[in-house]
Amino acid sequence: MKNLVCIIPVSSFESSKTRLSPFLSEDERTSLLKVMLSDIVDVVRDMVVDIILVSRDDNVYDYALELGVSFVKENDHEANKLNNALLDAIGSVKDNYVDHDILIIPSDIPLIKQEHIASVKQFESDLIISPSKGGGTNLLCFNSDYDFIPLFGDMSYFRHIEEALTSGMHINLIESFYLSLDINNPEDLGELLLHGVDTKSYDYLASLNIRVTSNHGKERLNVERNVE
Amino acid sequence: MKNLVCIIPVSSFESSKTRLSPFLSEDERTSLLKVMLSDIVDVVRDMVVDIILVSRDDNVYDYALELGVSFVKENDHEANKLNNALLDAIGSVKDNYVDHDILIIPSDIPLIKQEHIASVKQFESDLIISPSKGGGTNLLCFNSDYDFIPLFGDMSYFRHIEEALTSGMHINLIESFYLSLDINNPEDLGELLLHGVDTKSYDYLASLNIRVTSNHGKERLNVERNVE
Repeated sequence: MKNLVCIIPVSSFESSKTRLSPFLSEDERTSLLKVMLSDIVDVVRDMVVDIILVSRDDNVYDYALELGVSFVKENDHEANKLNNALLDAIGSVKDNYVDHDILIIPSDIPLIKQEHIASVKQFESDLIISPSKGGGTNLLCFNSDYDFIPLFGDMSYFRHIEEALTSGMHINLIESFYLSLDINNPEDLGELLLHGVDTKSYDYLASLNIRVTSNHGKERLNVERNVE
Repeated sequence: MKNLVCIIPVSSFESSKTRLSPFLSEDERTSLLKVMLSDIVDVVRDMVVDIILVSRDDNVYDYALELGVSFVKENDHEANKLNNALLDAIGSVKDNYVDHDILIIPSDIPLIKQEHIASVKQFESDLIISPSKGGGTNLLCFNSDYDFIPLFGDMSYFRHIEEALTSGMHINLIESFYLSLDINNPEDLGELLLHGVDTKSYDYLASLNIRVTSNHGKERLNVERNVE
């Protein structure tokens, strides 16, 4: 059974999730980001040894304190910020823990369940990975003894698998509908409203009168906000 | 361990999948529908007692013969055609098999794996269900002793669960990224190109020079067809 240290990268609370701007103001997008993080921490907290938020944003540090989780301030990276921030956090884990597995998940997958983490802990493989919509990676786990380099960004799911195969790592895949749903565009809000009724994120969206119905056009869901 | 009879409804080979018309001609959409069906039959065939295509289209009968699977011709239904066609097929199963479980899957989920069917067979619950993108149902399984009424259409996932709860059925959920991906719009073709390299459907799309790259706009994937 793996001992997990969970790393969640958070770029910045401001100017995030701009693809949701037709529905949500900047303040509301920050609030959604916070409530999604809170949902994720609620799910993961009892299953892991530590949760580390890594960010360059001091507001994220304040929120880590509020949630009662750890924080690593990322260094000033000129390029490839997300992956370099993750390397900062991985370095911190290697300094502080021996023979632990590193679990990296994004901050925008509020439908994650304890069953997913339980599966991660039971697999004995060197790398565990979950696909997101659009070729990305929404869960990545590897032993801190490996010098595994995170390659988040375009088509990262396939790049991570290629890296693991090149390194001779044994891979397990968790292919999950709930894990695949990161929240980036209005249709994603619709899926969250459909499948996330037990989350705080759902409560927040519902409080903003955001509603979802079926659509038979190019998209599957109509997501609308009723301003009253 | 359940004995499964698999029912796959196929509305008609013509005039189908119109949301793919920017990329595919009508003939190509028919070919894609056929090759997806062939992929699904390849996966399911050895795991079930029988596969039944149900349709009003005689071309689907011809294709069932070609695939070596069974066919039920649906009656002339004035409304609610899909669910009534399924009831026709369910009636046929009840006439021909005793104590079997009925597995209903759509014709457009070429990423289905044998692991999914193995999970269905192992669960001892009365209803097994998988969500699709957009609130739909992409897998439904129940014992033929139940008078379970299929309710495919808008938000069918939640309507099926409600029906099962009302009937006192015990429910198991298979929440799968691969099962959630039915192929309706161009972005779905992109996911199929990313995750379906071992399918005939992939080979067909690749033969048409349909390619996928990352996108950072409202959609996650750019799907383009290069006419040479």
